[in-house]
Amino acid sequence: MQAKTPSESVAILTDLVLPGETNPLNNLFGGELLARMDRAASIAARRHSRRITVTASVNHVAFNRAIPLGSVVTIEAKVSRTFKTSMEIYIDVWIEDRESGIKNKANEAIYTFVAVDETGRPVEVPAILPETELEKQRYDAALRRKQLSLVLAGKMKPNEATELKALFIE
Amino acid sequence: MQAKTPSESVAILTDLVLPGETNPLNNLFGGELLARMDRAASIAARRHSRRITVTASVNHVAFNRAIPLGSVVTIEAKVSRTFKTSMEIYIDVWIEDRESGIKNKANEAIYTFVAVDETGRPVEVPAILPETELEKQRYDAALRRKQLSLVLAGKMKPNEATELKALFIE
Amino acid sequence: MQAKTPSESVAILTDLVLPGETNPLNNLFGGELLARMDRAASIAARRHSRRITVTASVNHVAFNRAIPLGSVVTIEAKVSRTFKTSMEIYIDVWIEDRESGIKNKANEAIYTFVAVDETGRPVEVPAILPETELEKQRYDAALRRKQLSLVLAGKMKPNEATELKALFIE
Amino acid sequence: MQAKTPSESVAILTDLVLPGETNPLNNLFGGELLARMDRAASIAARRHSRRITVTASVNHVAFNRAIPLGSVVTIEAKVSRTFKTSMEIYIDVWIEDRESGIKNKANEAIYTFVAVDETGRPVEVPAILPETELEKQRYDAALRRKQLSLVLAGKMKPNEATELKALFIE
Amino acid sequence: MQAKTPSESVAILTDLVLPGETNPLNNLFGGELLARMDRAASIAARRHSRRITVTASVNHVAFNRAIPLGSVVTIEAKVSRTFKTSMEIYIDVWIEDRESGIKNKANEAIYTFVAVDETGRPVEVPAILPETELEKQRYDAALRRKQLSLVLAGKMKPNEATELKALFIE
Amino acid sequence: MQAKTPSESVAILTDLVLPGETNPLNNLFGGELLARMDRAASIAARRHSRRITVTASVNHVAFNRAIPLGSVVTIEAKVSRTFKTSMEIYIDVWIEDRESGIKNKANEAIYTFVAVDETGRPVEVPAILPETELEKQRYDAALRRKQLSLVLAGKMKPNEATELKALFIE
Repeated sequence: MQAKTPSESVAILTDLVLPGETNPLNNLFGGELLARMDRAASIAARRHSRRITVTASVNHVAFNRAIPLGSVVTIEAKVSRTFKTSMEIYIDVWIEDRESGIKNKANEAIYTFVAVDETGRPVEVPAILPETELEKQRYDAALRRKQLSLVLAGKMKPNEATELKALFIE
Repeated sequence: MQAKTPSESVAILTDLVLPGETNPLNNLFGGELLARMDRAASIAARRHSRRITVTASVNHVAFNRAIPLGSVVTIEAKVSRTFKTSMEIYIDVWIEDRESGIKNKANEAIYTFVAVDETGRPVEVPAILPETELEKQRYDAALRRKQLSLVLAGKMKPNEATELKALFIE
Repeated sequence: MQAKTPSESVAILTDLVLPGETNPLNNLFGGELLARMDRAASIAARRHSRRITVTASVNHVAFNRAIPLGSVVTIEAKVSRTFKTSMEIYIDVWIEDRESGIKNKANEAIYTFVAVDETGRPVEVPAILPETELEKQRYDAALRRKQLSLVLAGKMKPNEATELKALFIE
Repeated sequence: MQAKTPSESVAILTDLVLPGETNPLNNLFGGELLARMDRAASIAARRHSRRITVTASVNHVAFNRAIPLGSVVTIEAKVSRTFKTSMEIYIDVWIEDRESGIKNKANEAIYTFVAVDETGRPVEVPAILPETELEKQRYDAALRRKQLSLVLAGKMKPNEATELKALFIE
Repeated sequence: MQAKTPSESVAILTDLVLPGETNPLNNLFGGELLARMDRAASIAARRHSRRITVTASVNHVAFNRAIPLGSVVTIEAKVSRTFKTSMEIYIDVWIEDRESGIKNKANEAIYTFVAVDETGRPVEVPAILPETELEKQRYDAALRRKQLSLVLAGKMKPNEATELKALFIE
Repeated sequence: MQAKTPSESVAILTDLVLPGETNPLNNLFGGELLARMDRAASIAARRHSRRITVTASVNHVAFNRAIPLGSVVTIEAKVSRTFKTSMEIYIDVWIEDRESGIKNKANEAIYTFVAVDETGRPVEVPAILPETELEKQRYDAALRRKQLSLVLAGKMKPNEATELKALFIE
């Protein structure tokens, strides 16, 4: 299987915020944003693996900025790192100012997907080759996040999490 | 007001087809596709004009190909021509094959939007400068479509629709 | 197959405009109206043909009048003309004033449906017999619209579009 | 205030059953039908009273017949009787066979609405004049239903419910 | 089949009121509340019977109190009485004050469900043993409601409805 | 401000999985589950703080088990730990077997909410007093998770994250 770059998997979902998608404060309802990110991320995972993909976990979502009714929201999802059968997807969310056209970062999120065959059994996915500086940083950090989630789930002993341990001891 | 290119207004809405968005034949429900195209087109109109925009008309939509449940659908909308206060938006819809990654054209559509100020009064929009061959063709055809809709609405006499008339007489 | 009248196929969809169906200007969202018209039109096509019907194209929709939150909207769809396997559906949209009860025309739209058998193959539909003056006008205009869409799609030479040509030359 | 006939208030909501509106048995989900009937009934109440109307109660709904995915469903709501500030709305639900065009009764329901002014205070509504045999039967039965709901709510003594009492004693 | 208590079947559905679920007066839309109660009640019926259950009728719903946008709504459904193959479900709806935490009763409703096997044929359900004072009152009243609906449907003669008759004669 | 127990904030959202809420594999769509958990968690945060609450982050969601169409899903959310103005909410998701009535754990998730005043400024929340063994474990682990997210966000130096560090060094 040939390795691919993150830009080959990028999925862009630009959409409006309509009244039926808001919370009582007139901002995009958090659950709706989580759902849109899930849709975009699953497309990125599918484009990378060309397989059926299922959400394995949501690793982190930061709601830094409320997204008001009437906004144009751009969700950009791409594969940040692959493991044997799983893919970490990094998602950036932007809102743009109507008058200036300037885009500001609103949120970011990390989801993990697994590629499966028709019977639901996990299958291997192509490796990823990060290109830009940001892609490389996210690729490196992904390993620490992976170890972390294994440690917190009790599936890895802390002293085996070499990448992560290095953060705390030097 | 400075003229802009179509690529400055392009809006991409990539999304899945989930069961709640299908018709009884298990394809994307036509009404849902019309709604998604309206959302993408209004973003393109807004990016071009940096104004509030409202849908003025749907001029043509061809449903050439059913879009099955589970598809990844890419809607790409951009401004094809501007008139004083209105913008014709050309929309291309693609579905992609999961295994090969190949994208096939499923539909195309033409919508018209008007830019308005806060009181709802139409305001002028920047001119458009088509760049690619396809953008130029669509730009030229837009004038014929405009004349045609004026003629059919009884707002222009057929013999004043010079561009259109040229199609029938030579 | 026995011919039918437009009134035999008429489908009426009266409904409210609730907050979850609006745009940020508190009017019925254009995409939602397109979807409701698609539903009503497909019922008219089905009643005329007694077949499975699929949306072939949206030929024209004019958004003349915004439909505010809380309105009662009446969509009336009926077959305006049939061709071998296809049906043109003419749709009128009304809003009514709560206090006076007066209905005003808000929009109109033209959709085309094709009748298909269980395998998806187009099948013939009954002829239509327009009765009222308005039905007869729409019946006549439908042929010009049909020729027009064939000409614009490059499937008919302009000089063969006799009905349409007559508009421009005399 | 001039009395009106039931046919002046009739509201017809014809619509499809799409997959997103079904239950796991592939029939129209009961909650969705209850919501559609509420929309149609509130339009009938509003047409009769020309007032803002709010649902006061659902008095009876019988789900006699499942409505399968893909059906065309016709909901017909009209005022069956008025009291000082409230209106009983009788709702008939039909499904039609695609091939024969025959409509069969699927359900019926009774809802009560109250007319209110802008401050939410109940206001008087016009009287109703039933015309057909069925309208007259429903008009008469409405009084028994009214007494019944007052008795069950402890707001009327059984021996004052003269219409109802007559059912049990003779 | 062993009898069960109402508390064994209780289903609690606590949820928010978001803008997409309101009516034009900014309260929870009646149809949405009817749908949520149907979902909660069907879970109670299923827990009691451990069978597939289908809504047979809505016997009574009183909308005593509007539920404003942003409210926390608690729906509590439990079996109030069983008959051979059917279950009456009593539903209480509460809204709670954010600052004091106090819950107030907003609505109540009565639905009836039937338990069916895989072929859709009605099957027997376990008996119910009311425990609290309120459960006992509702249990007793359920029989009168049952007789009443049989009388009104013309399936029982008034003088055979002994429980109900006793209300009117003494 | 008086401290509270987790059981005082618990929010239970029991609901069905209908076809309109599934993914193409006929399981509950991940985005829909994320949205339902957000709703339940925000109610728990509001019950604890009696304030307006906004989602600050999703810290972890594990999709261990697909939730099939037709399931009864119980979401139980409660406050696991509070910090000055924020609350960690722990969410357990169960599905129950119709025939046996047995509930199995399907997923778990951790969300963080902030309490704000009417102007959107963060305000202090009451302390939490874990009672059960599980509540105490989650309370302790919450601090490590808090430190971790500060370290990963570059807002805390690893050697200051004493609780977390202890995991890696001994």
